[in-house]
Amino acid sequence: MPEDLPQRVRTVWWEEDEKSATVVLLDQSLLPQQVVYLHLKDEEQVADAIKTLKVRGAPAIGVTAAFGMALALYRLQREAAERGEALTLDQAHAHLLAAGHLLGLTRPTAVNLFWAIERMQRRADQLVGQGCGVEELGRALRTEAQAIADEDFAACQRMGEYGAALIADGDTLLTHCNAGALATAGWGTALAPMYVASRAGKQIHVFVDETRPILQGARLTAWELQQEGIPLTLITDNMAGHFMHHGGIKAVFVGADRIAANGDVANKIGTYSVAVLARAHNIPFYVVAPCSTVDLSLPSGEHIPIEQRNPEEVTRVRDAQVAPVGVNVANPAFDVTPHTYVTAIITEKGIARPPYEVTLRQIFRDEHDSGR
Amino acid sequence: MPEDLPQRVRTVWWEEDEKSATVVLLDQSLLPQQVVYLHLKDEEQVADAIKTLKVRGAPAIGVTAAFGMALALYRLQREAAERGEALTLDQAHAHLLAAGHLLGLTRPTAVNLFWAIERMQRRADQLVGQGCGVEELGRALRTEAQAIADEDFAACQRMGEYGAALIADGDTLLTHCNAGALATAGWGTALAPMYVASRAGKQIHVFVDETRPILQGARLTAWELQQEGIPLTLITDNMAGHFMHHGGIKAVFVGADRIAANGDVANKIGTYSVAVLARAHNIPFYVVAPCSTVDLSLPSGEHIPIEQRNPEEVTRVRDAQVAPVGVNVANPAFDVTPHTYVTAIITEKGIARPPYEVTLRQIFRDEHDSGR
Repeated sequence: MPEDLPQRVRTVWWEEDEKSATVVLLDQSLLPQQVVYLHLKDEEQVADAIKTLKVRGAPAIGVTAAFGMALALYRLQREAAERGEALTLDQAHAHLLAAGHLLGLTRPTAVNLFWAIERMQRRADQLVGQGCGVEELGRALRTEAQAIADEDFAACQRMGEYGAALIADGDTLLTHCNAGALATAGWGTALAPMYVASRAGKQIHVFVDETRPILQGARLTAWELQQEGIPLTLITDNMAGHFMHHGGIKAVFVGADRIAANGDVANKIGTYSVAVLARAHNIPFYVVAPCSTVDLSLPSGEHIPIEQRNPEEVTRVRDAQVAPVGVNVANPAFDVTPHTYVTAIITEKGIARPPYEVTLRQIFRDEHDSGR
Repeated sequence: MPEDLPQRVRTVWWEEDEKSATVVLLDQSLLPQQVVYLHLKDEEQVADAIKTLKVRGAPAIGVTAAFGMALALYRLQREAAERGEALTLDQAHAHLLAAGHLLGLTRPTAVNLFWAIERMQRRADQLVGQGCGVEELGRALRTEAQAIADEDFAACQRMGEYGAALIADGDTLLTHCNAGALATAGWGTALAPMYVASRAGKQIHVFVDETRPILQGARLTAWELQQEGIPLTLITDNMAGHFMHHGGIKAVFVGADRIAANGDVANKIGTYSVAVLARAHNIPFYVVAPCSTVDLSLPSGEHIPIEQRNPEEVTRVRDAQVAPVGVNVANPAFDVTPHTYVTAIITEKGIARPPYEVTLRQIFRDEHDSGR
């Protein structure tokens, strides 16, 4: 963990000693009232944590799933050893496939989840193809998961630097949901430019949408910015238009759960409304996301599957029932913002501007070039 | 109470027997989980009920304040009688002024409150000027308050009929906050056209914004429509844009707390965002309000005072703290929607369309003409 990130916003990491390994996770469903770290012992606990939003945020989900894959193999090896059996490479490989399937069923919208699972599986396929040993496979997968986490950290830093260049001293900004340190293994996506700008001495003020129904803005973003000492104003989602009209907001920064090849952006429900409001007030609307969020296999946003969540998230807040019993509810977890509303997409490889069909592919080409 | 209104959505009324009189109020802060009627015994209890949102909705606040004025005099008379004293007309008159002042301090934005208080005071001035007796003054004020309630009921019916003509069979509609039976002494303002359309056999479906922070949509509008058997979908406020894009919404109906001479509309926070979103999706945006909501003394909406409420309404939901302690919060109770976003204003005197400077004054002229 790099020193300049406050210890308490550390989201997910691997912990191992001679006897056991666990994936350690900050339980975000309890924030900000309780700061509880979970020690997950197997891939089912990891899948459950993702499903129940104990960890959320597209990049953090990807990192968690990668650690979950490594944990699945670690656990199987450990159990076999305890029975005095030797695990075969085929058993290990089959188990990884099953674990990837399980983890992939947790949440359908964020592409980073599938990207991380596939990357872990590709690494496994590669090693199995080379006829490695099971121990070696396990070590390599733990290394790969850690690499995903480390790369996410570095990507956040670079997105922060690119994005900070778009923020002037004295700017008032607005963000929706939580695309901060809690959503990643690093400084965050949408919040990273704010952290970088603030640490560079720029005075900023952030309007934070509370982001119903799960209140990630009120619970997580407000808390993160508070930890960092960045001045903020928490608002209900329906105040965004009012403060765009009267609050001097200079730019909107949001994250993304999946970006199609044409620049359409799936992100937390309410993002589309914010984008339309920003356009009506001539406020730039910036999407900040690592390349792992871009899904070039999808031509446009209408192909992105949208997760429908439990109606009780709307009818109840914490333990309190707020709506009449039996009421019909819609609860899409995400919406799609057409690329025409997106001023720019800030990635760790640079800033893409329209036409996104061209610029996003350009960024990917550069990534592959540099990876050669 | 007209028979065709379900008994349970009765908002406020006067109850009197030989020994006492009370203003009876449905405590809307407990809905929909508890249906509790309060029996208010003096004007201070009435003022407190308005301030703490036990009654809300611009027309209902006006009716409640009118009954509160009548109650203030009734109580003073009763107490004097118990002491064996006779109340002078001057004492009664002075007390009414004080009661009007107290009630006027409760909430600054809805003009119906001031309209009702002033109407009660004008009636008192008139009778005092005629040298009436104190008993007669008391009776006349009770009659005047009841007239305000009855006129509100009739106005709701007419707004419902005018508005229903704008709703087609099969329409999907959207509303924000609660401008229904609970907000008035009748069928409501924004919901009245839905009730009339539905009772006329038109199949409609209503998207209901939950309306943070007080959740009047989730708690009150969803409950009212459920009582009436009108199909609805409860959504968080930030879903409105998504469902305008994908949900086939044909029109938005909202109420108003004050309308300036140029047609600018103060209404529940979030209304402005809904109006901007409606415009972006080419959806008509209708404001439904009685003439008592129109304040011709204000040239435009920027002159409307906006009530700032307790930050805890945002940081807490029911008894649960949802935001970090000490966070900075904005909590304007209302926003102003510029008239350029308003397709039409539906009043009990007819439908006003732009230019509102002309059409709203026309409606008032007609009202004064018919009142001669």
